[in-house]
Amino acid sequence: MTVCQPQVSTCLNKELSVQPIPDVKTLDDFRQLLRSLPGPDAGAVDAAAAREPQLTKPPGALGRLEELSAWLCAWQGHHPPRLEKPACAVFAGNHGVAALGVSAFPAEVTVQMVHNFTHGGAAINQLCRTFGVALNVYALNLESPTADFTRAPAMDEAACVLAIKAGMAAVPEDCDVLCLGEMGIANTTAAAAVANALFGGDAAEWTGPGTGVSGQALSRKTEVVAQGVALHRPALTDGLEILRHLGGYELAAIVGAVVAARLARVPVLLDGFICTAAAAVLAPMRPDALDHCVVAHISAEPAHLRLAERLGKRPLFDLGMRLGEASGAVLAVGMLKAAVACHNGMATFAEAGVSDKE
Amino acid sequence: MTVCQPQVSTCLNKELSVQPIPDVKTLDDFRQLLRSLPGPDAGAVDAAAAREPQLTKPPGALGRLEELSAWLCAWQGHHPPRLEKPACAVFAGNHGVAALGVSAFPAEVTVQMVHNFTHGGAAINQLCRTFGVALNVYALNLESPTADFTRAPAMDEAACVLAIKAGMAAVPEDCDVLCLGEMGIANTTAAAAVANALFGGDAAEWTGPGTGVSGQALSRKTEVVAQGVALHRPALTDGLEILRHLGGYELAAIVGAVVAARLARVPVLLDGFICTAAAAVLAPMRPDALDHCVVAHISAEPAHLRLAERLGKRPLFDLGMRLGEASGAVLAVGMLKAAVACHNGMATFAEAGVSDKE
Repeated sequence: MTVCQPQVSTCLNKELSVQPIPDVKTLDDFRQLLRSLPGPDAGAVDAAAAREPQLTKPPGALGRLEELSAWLCAWQGHHPPRLEKPACAVFAGNHGVAALGVSAFPAEVTVQMVHNFTHGGAAINQLCRTFGVALNVYALNLESPTADFTRAPAMDEAACVLAIKAGMAAVPEDCDVLCLGEMGIANTTAAAAVANALFGGDAAEWTGPGTGVSGQALSRKTEVVAQGVALHRPALTDGLEILRHLGGYELAAIVGAVVAARLARVPVLLDGFICTAAAAVLAPMRPDALDHCVVAHISAEPAHLRLAERLGKRPLFDLGMRLGEASGAVLAVGMLKAAVACHNGMATFAEAGVSDKE
Repeated sequence: MTVCQPQVSTCLNKELSVQPIPDVKTLDDFRQLLRSLPGPDAGAVDAAAAREPQLTKPPGALGRLEELSAWLCAWQGHHPPRLEKPACAVFAGNHGVAALGVSAFPAEVTVQMVHNFTHGGAAINQLCRTFGVALNVYALNLESPTADFTRAPAMDEAACVLAIKAGMAAVPEDCDVLCLGEMGIANTTAAAAVANALFGGDAAEWTGPGTGVSGQALSRKTEVVAQGVALHRPALTDGLEILRHLGGYELAAIVGAVVAARLARVPVLLDGFICTAAAAVLAPMRPDALDHCVVAHISAEPAHLRLAERLGKRPLFDLGMRLGEASGAVLAVGMLKAAVACHNGMATFAEAGVSDKE
């Protein structure tokens, strides 16, 4: 598989220095790795909890901003939390099912949009510039889409492992939060199939308009999802097999990045439906696998909120976005920066000479 | 009335150059001014609507970010929208009803917090620094609280007009969005009374914990609100009389700032319950009076969402914040910057050579 990495882009770290990554040759190696994920840093969490009530505000008055600074401490493994070097990885892949007419856009748009990322013209470029986020874009084997999952597994094991490893290699060495996102014509179809396989129910519950299909095209898309899940059901023995049979390169890369970030003590902001569906394959394999991840926003793709709820995640905001590209995740970086600035920078009651609650 | 303005603060424009403001000597002058507010700029809105579908994304995929850039165009009166000079005005006032034990904090905290703003130690200082917002804080007559509204009108007409004018003078000459906020021990009590007088119902529907009262203290607070509304009911002939009888200096200043911003073509971000309640007095006087205002967030103060709904406003996010100080409004500046960056900076389908929807 060709992994073109990283694409030159607006806020690119041109010479990407990555975290050292464990050797993974098979899906079983990756399953083994999942057993060794570190937990939250209790000391850092305690330090945050000790400082928070001293700050010049009524207790709890910053709401989820207070939770976010504690969460950063837990998964960065230190107090005070830091938010100086946010990074973003966007993975692009093509899908065999695109040939079935499941998207409102032609498949060549994936590679065209990667060029757009490269030249700084996409939404994610503007968002990364706005919030000072270093952007890296990974074009994964765009010339060879995954197999049409209504006929065969989307990926063989070797391709799936390579894509996971591409994601594992996408965690910059020096970053304090990682935003994950994707681009891939037809990948809401893959994500719907993955979510349907993970959480059951009808295909229609998990299938939505994506870039904008409706009517007959949406019915066709739903049928494709149902066919794929039905065809592979006997082989869907765990989250990684669901990923391999129904996912895609960019979904597999997201899974790899989520795990590598955990190992590197980098908290993760998940984006919308596709990104969350990819990460979700880890949940049945290890209940705490996504504790270092926040779902940034509720996508307008109808199944995203349901998916977040199944994962016990409460997204930070809902602006009706449905673009992917990590756009919602990067928008949430502003909230994280605000949380860290308040936690670290506010005066205490004692420092400011402000009377505490009576 | 002493208006100490502006306080020196982290991101302060030390020599504040303000928009020229109309001469207002009486509440009737202000009523007259309300009749002359400008409407949205149709040409700028059309220009935004013409550009938006050309940008390299599925139509509508940026959700409310697209609405926000169109809204900025409408009320800034030009296209492209600008978000380079956001400003924030925080008004502080003291309240006679504070003596009735309606707050969890003692009344001296208002002046202490103004010092904290001045020395850069409050949440709003950190938030303004994070989002590059110029902060000005106005301490309004802190040494002389408004009258206890369970016994007399909170303000006489002269004091109310002075406070409105202080707010009108707080719109910087060169700013492209204005965040409004407040600080004032006991001012959720005033805001609850204003909202109750405006929208009816029981006092309990509009009265909440504020900085953290509960149980008997909350019952007492609710009773204070009910008493004030009942006492003054015959005199509450319009929004400005509600403001004068039940509001406070900082609420009146917010009303003045909202109107002056409209005249100066500066869109406004309203903060939480108190700020929204203050602005709400304009709604019954002129149905479109708040069209240039966005309610930034849903405060955890329970009545805020109800109040926003009565105004037909859909807040941008809900992070469970309840601090005031314009904290939610300034957090929303990140979203506005993102909206403008995408609208202005993204490539069109033609520029990027990306295939449009099939």
